[in-house]
Amino acid sequence: MPPLPDPSLSRLFNPRSIAIVGASATPGKIGAMPVSLLRQHGYDGRILPINPRAQAVQGLPTAPDLAALDSEADLVILAVPAAHAAQALARARPGQVGGAVVFTSGFSETGAPGVAMQEQLCGIARERGIRLLGPNCLGFMNIRRNIYATFSPAPANGTVAPGGIGMVSQSGAFGAYAYCMARDRGLGLSHWISTGNEADIDVADCIEWLAHDDDTRVIMTYMEGCRDGTKLRRALSAARDAGKPVVVTKIGRTQAGAQAAASHTAALAGDDAVYDALFRQYGAVRARTIEEFFNLGYALDTWKQRPQGKRLGIFTISGGVGALMADDAQDAGLSLPEPAVEAQARLLERVPFASARNPVDVTGQAVSEPGLLLATAEDMLADDRYDALAVFLAAAGSSEALGPTFETFAREMRARRPNVPLAICALFPPARRRELERLGALVFTDPSAAIRTIGAVANLATDTDADVDVDADVTTIASDDAAPKLASYNEVQAMAVLREAGMPVPDCTLATHADAAVLAAARAGGPVVLKVVSPDILHKSDIGGVKLGLSGDDAVRRAHDAILDNVRAHRPDARIDGILVAPMAPQGVECIAGVHCDPVFGPVVMFGLGGVFVEVLKDVSFRLAPFGRQQALSMIREIKGYALLQGARGAPPCDIDALADALVALSRFAYSRRKDFSSAEINPLLALPEGKGALALDAVLIPTV
Amino acid sequence: MPPLPDPSLSRLFNPRSIAIVGASATPGKIGAMPVSLLRQHGYDGRILPINPRAQAVQGLPTAPDLAALDSEADLVILAVPAAHAAQALARARPGQVGGAVVFTSGFSETGAPGVAMQEQLCGIARERGIRLLGPNCLGFMNIRRNIYATFSPAPANGTVAPGGIGMVSQSGAFGAYAYCMARDRGLGLSHWISTGNEADIDVADCIEWLAHDDDTRVIMTYMEGCRDGTKLRRALSAARDAGKPVVVTKIGRTQAGAQAAASHTAALAGDDAVYDALFRQYGAVRARTIEEFFNLGYALDTWKQRPQGKRLGIFTISGGVGALMADDAQDAGLSLPEPAVEAQARLLERVPFASARNPVDVTGQAVSEPGLLLATAEDMLADDRYDALAVFLAAAGSSEALGPTFETFAREMRARRPNVPLAICALFPPARRRELERLGALVFTDPSAAIRTIGAVANLATDTDADVDVDADVTTIASDDAAPKLASYNEVQAMAVLREAGMPVPDCTLATHADAAVLAAARAGGPVVLKVVSPDILHKSDIGGVKLGLSGDDAVRRAHDAILDNVRAHRPDARIDGILVAPMAPQGVECIAGVHCDPVFGPVVMFGLGGVFVEVLKDVSFRLAPFGRQQALSMIREIKGYALLQGARGAPPCDIDALADALVALSRFAYSRRKDFSSAEINPLLALPEGKGALALDAVLIPTV
Repeated sequence: MPPLPDPSLSRLFNPRSIAIVGASATPGKIGAMPVSLLRQHGYDGRILPINPRAQAVQGLPTAPDLAALDSEADLVILAVPAAHAAQALARARPGQVGGAVVFTSGFSETGAPGVAMQEQLCGIARERGIRLLGPNCLGFMNIRRNIYATFSPAPANGTVAPGGIGMVSQSGAFGAYAYCMARDRGLGLSHWISTGNEADIDVADCIEWLAHDDDTRVIMTYMEGCRDGTKLRRALSAARDAGKPVVVTKIGRTQAGAQAAASHTAALAGDDAVYDALFRQYGAVRARTIEEFFNLGYALDTWKQRPQGKRLGIFTISGGVGALMADDAQDAGLSLPEPAVEAQARLLERVPFASARNPVDVTGQAVSEPGLLLATAEDMLADDRYDALAVFLAAAGSSEALGPTFETFAREMRARRPNVPLAICALFPPARRRELERLGALVFTDPSAAIRTIGAVANLATDTDADVDVDADVTTIASDDAAPKLASYNEVQAMAVLREAGMPVPDCTLATHADAAVLAAARAGGPVVLKVVSPDILHKSDIGGVKLGLSGDDAVRRAHDAILDNVRAHRPDARIDGILVAPMAPQGVECIAGVHCDPVFGPVVMFGLGGVFVEVLKDVSFRLAPFGRQQALSMIREIKGYALLQGARGAPPCDIDALADALVALSRFAYSRRKDFSSAEINPLLALPEGKGALALDAVLIPTV
Repeated sequence: MPPLPDPSLSRLFNPRSIAIVGASATPGKIGAMPVSLLRQHGYDGRILPINPRAQAVQGLPTAPDLAALDSEADLVILAVPAAHAAQALARARPGQVGGAVVFTSGFSETGAPGVAMQEQLCGIARERGIRLLGPNCLGFMNIRRNIYATFSPAPANGTVAPGGIGMVSQSGAFGAYAYCMARDRGLGLSHWISTGNEADIDVADCIEWLAHDDDTRVIMTYMEGCRDGTKLRRALSAARDAGKPVVVTKIGRTQAGAQAAASHTAALAGDDAVYDALFRQYGAVRARTIEEFFNLGYALDTWKQRPQGKRLGIFTISGGVGALMADDAQDAGLSLPEPAVEAQARLLERVPFASARNPVDVTGQAVSEPGLLLATAEDMLADDRYDALAVFLAAAGSSEALGPTFETFAREMRARRPNVPLAICALFPPARRRELERLGALVFTDPSAAIRTIGAVANLATDTDADVDVDADVTTIASDDAAPKLASYNEVQAMAVLREAGMPVPDCTLATHADAAVLAAARAGGPVVLKVVSPDILHKSDIGGVKLGLSGDDAVRRAHDAILDNVRAHRPDARIDGILVAPMAPQGVECIAGVHCDPVFGPVVMFGLGGVFVEVLKDVSFRLAPFGRQQALSMIREIKGYALLQGARGAPPCDIDALADALVALSRFAYSRRKDFSSAEINPLLALPEGKGALALDAVLIPTV
């Protein structure tokens, strides 16, 4: 993994000295909270209260301003009104301050005067080389080092344990809630960061920094939008390279949500479908709900070993709930292989009325026979057949008497099968639940949540989407500034450009007179299609501008002339570039590929099936350009109509590899020529039968103006 | 509502005397548990232990068998091994025993000898007029009357409160778990029933009985399958008529789940899609997970007033989480109208940086200003604009200091806006949560779960699917036994039968010679289509058996003869019924309607769009025949391709009312002729533009053999 490009965040998040501008002795004030939290939790660096109107604050001597401070302050907390923040920071000496956290609101989130104040603050910070967290944020906590650079009241009601989760939230309220949820669910955090207005440091910066932080194993982040797509890609890619899963909640999935998000963030957030593509592309897991967000964090934090595949073993004391869990497993994309034949025999020998398939159901017998749990699990796991095990214990979990049995089970499983992550579904008393978690087992009351979580985590490990070429691409594909560019592209020109870019384009000719058309048709060798090419005519067929299936010189010549006659009759003023001559397309499935330019993430490639699929069902997939073959294959498989490409309705399967290659070529073209083209559409992109390739039959390229 | 058809279950579930056969003094034995539970919880009827080997059990005098008992036993609990159960029950005198609960396993779930034992037991019960619960079940509890006819250990770890939820579970393990969940989540139950092998009483019987039970307001049920579809329909319809919502969990949604369910229940369970249709049709809510099951039960139990519409007000102290909740609201089918203009003005006056739209975001200000919560809610609700209110309090819920503020808020809301159900999302200490629930508010930690629950409950109230004609139909549409029936139906005969049934069928004629064809074409008045009709030819077009767009006598005659020539050339042995003459179909959207016979529920009508929609995307909807117009409209709207019928891609909207009428006619036909036909397919069923109707262009009817 490349080293952290800019170490300045380390000074901010790991400060050896913290100055609090606006430090206060009045409990509950935002300038009092960090001082008392830092002292109370035993921060081992220097705490430097700044207050011109007090000699001491909470027993610590103060300085009137940063200039009067005789030492460095790796971190400055600005807990003063917005109007005074810039001025206070301006008192810093060059190099004295590493970073500043600005709590106060009243900046860019409040309109034009606030925007101006925020810009002034940023300017001063930039001049002095100070990194800025906020303004309008709840600050951050470095949990392991007891650094509470926050005024959130959340830690006052109980602190979270130190652990491996780095949590970054754009929203302070979400962050505070997440802090409380983590505490209640027993998750351990390394860092907790709220980024607020993101005048300088944004969520992407924090993800990238946490990707390089040794204390962090898992990154959980909440975001509302992003202004620098390239930086976010770099950050997600750093996390992936470091093997640290990223769990993301991003608002604005739906139209209603996006509208609410826009009115809340007042920022251009980019198209949500593009974020979705981004997360898939970089293997980040998107959580749709806070519950899902925490279930994922919980699993990633609790399990020392994540499932390495998608083969789930389910074992229950209720056949019915087992079937319910099988439903969930199928929904979650998990497979349920049967236990080995010998294992099934042993299971049935032990419990004759058991169901020995998967889900295995050992019936209520498990309650009266303490050893049965472990014996069953051991039988199932004997030949390395499962990547994870989910156990449902029904009401037995509530029984205090059976508690030791369950603990023994979890302990032995960890000792004997450390590679098979375990989830137990039951209602346990809280202390028992915590003990089982300490032993490495997940505990859920809802079996469906357990299965969904296992599925999502297994996906992380086995995701074939992870396409490690991507970053290389982003950095190695230069913008092709030397490429020639026209003011507009007719169909033939567009096809030529795409052929040059490696797209499969049929050999077509723009004939400017009948003889040329006849010659081109003869060269094509088989029946041809003739189409008028004109910047003024959109619907060529409607005015007789297209003739299909022409064979022989005469037919071609007659068609050529007829097209010209038709065009002149219907659209006498149309400019005519010529008549396109192309071989008749073979049979295939019509697809559509397109490129549009996202304001945040740049060129995005779209893929879908032609006809009702795109137009009525909006059945399309996206990826950020450029991408490699794995991504292309996964975006093809992602559409609901994929079965049609696999050869539904008795048709032969399509050449999906060729389609993927075409998409890769399109993505590289879109990225390298991102300055030249604002959009592209290839419609139809014909998928031919396996081994026969794909064909871009028509294309529109819109140059940037 | 009609009276309970059979009061025998009331005697069983409300017994004034309970005999326990196999009563035991040994703690933990299945014959000991009910005796001790009944005594411990103060059952006020007679407890009659039966044990031939003890004078007294747990201090109560015993009888050696039922015959020796000098009194009636409204309920007998059989806690003896399977092999002795029938014999024990056989000792009952006629009329002495109302019902029996059989705990023991080893009956039909274990294979042939068990099936025989179960049949013997049933025979004895039937002879003596004894209703049977079980065998292989955990019994039941009548919570309000302290009747614990169960050996489930669940109540031993704490009992649930009496309340309005009647819970019925086919699975004992699920039932026991549900009991514990209800206890943990503070839900109140009226009855808890486990039906086990369902030798006599099944889930449907219990639903119907609970629909008539005054103590029950909500029915929650878990089922694995059903053997008597008509009874289940009657039960769901009784619950609907009584205004009691039914929440259902049924296993086997997916292929994996159905496979697991089949191996568990070893019973024919019917097609899951048909259950899904059934639940929609009768307004039962299907919960996909145990979490969802309980969230629904929780809302239906806690809210005294359910939302009467789908307009949701969201108010938060976090704009970001508000947007997340807006996403969920859209997914849940809820609308988010803005507050009134004056309300927005008042909101912004109070909190200038608030977002006054919906979601309303009053920012962290709400924490420092206790009155703000109520004032904001009052503003939003002033003009009756919302059917429910969801509030997100972020981390503030954890604050002990703010607790009284939240309680005041909930109390005042209940007093001032009793018609607007309230859900609060926050992490509260348990006692505070219970107090808020007591005040009628739902409390969730996950805002998404809150929104989904509100959506599902709002659906119950506003469901236009509730089509009260259905039952009338089921009972009034007699089986039309007098209808003539052929051994097989050719296309023309099938069309004639469907026309008779009220389906829109074009006027077509079967011509047996060329003159007849010419005459029929002349009568049709416009261009016609000619098709060969033969039981031996499936793909007519492939052999030149279809001619389209024919005008004029000559053209028709030539086409007639050509078709016969083609058929004779390709299929010299084919029997030819004649040549069908039909008007050319107008432009329309091709749909497919079908009927198949479900082994449990009888004729089921299917609807979908033609082409890839049915074949590739499996985009179809189902309803049990017969049904009325609302159901037909809802099954049309349910398909994903519905937009195509609304006039996508510039096409005019289709005549959806006519389509619905056609489906209603098909459903009535399928039901009344259910003994005659095993399946029907109308393909295509053409949907014409609005006001122009629909047309069944081709039909296949398969008579039962």
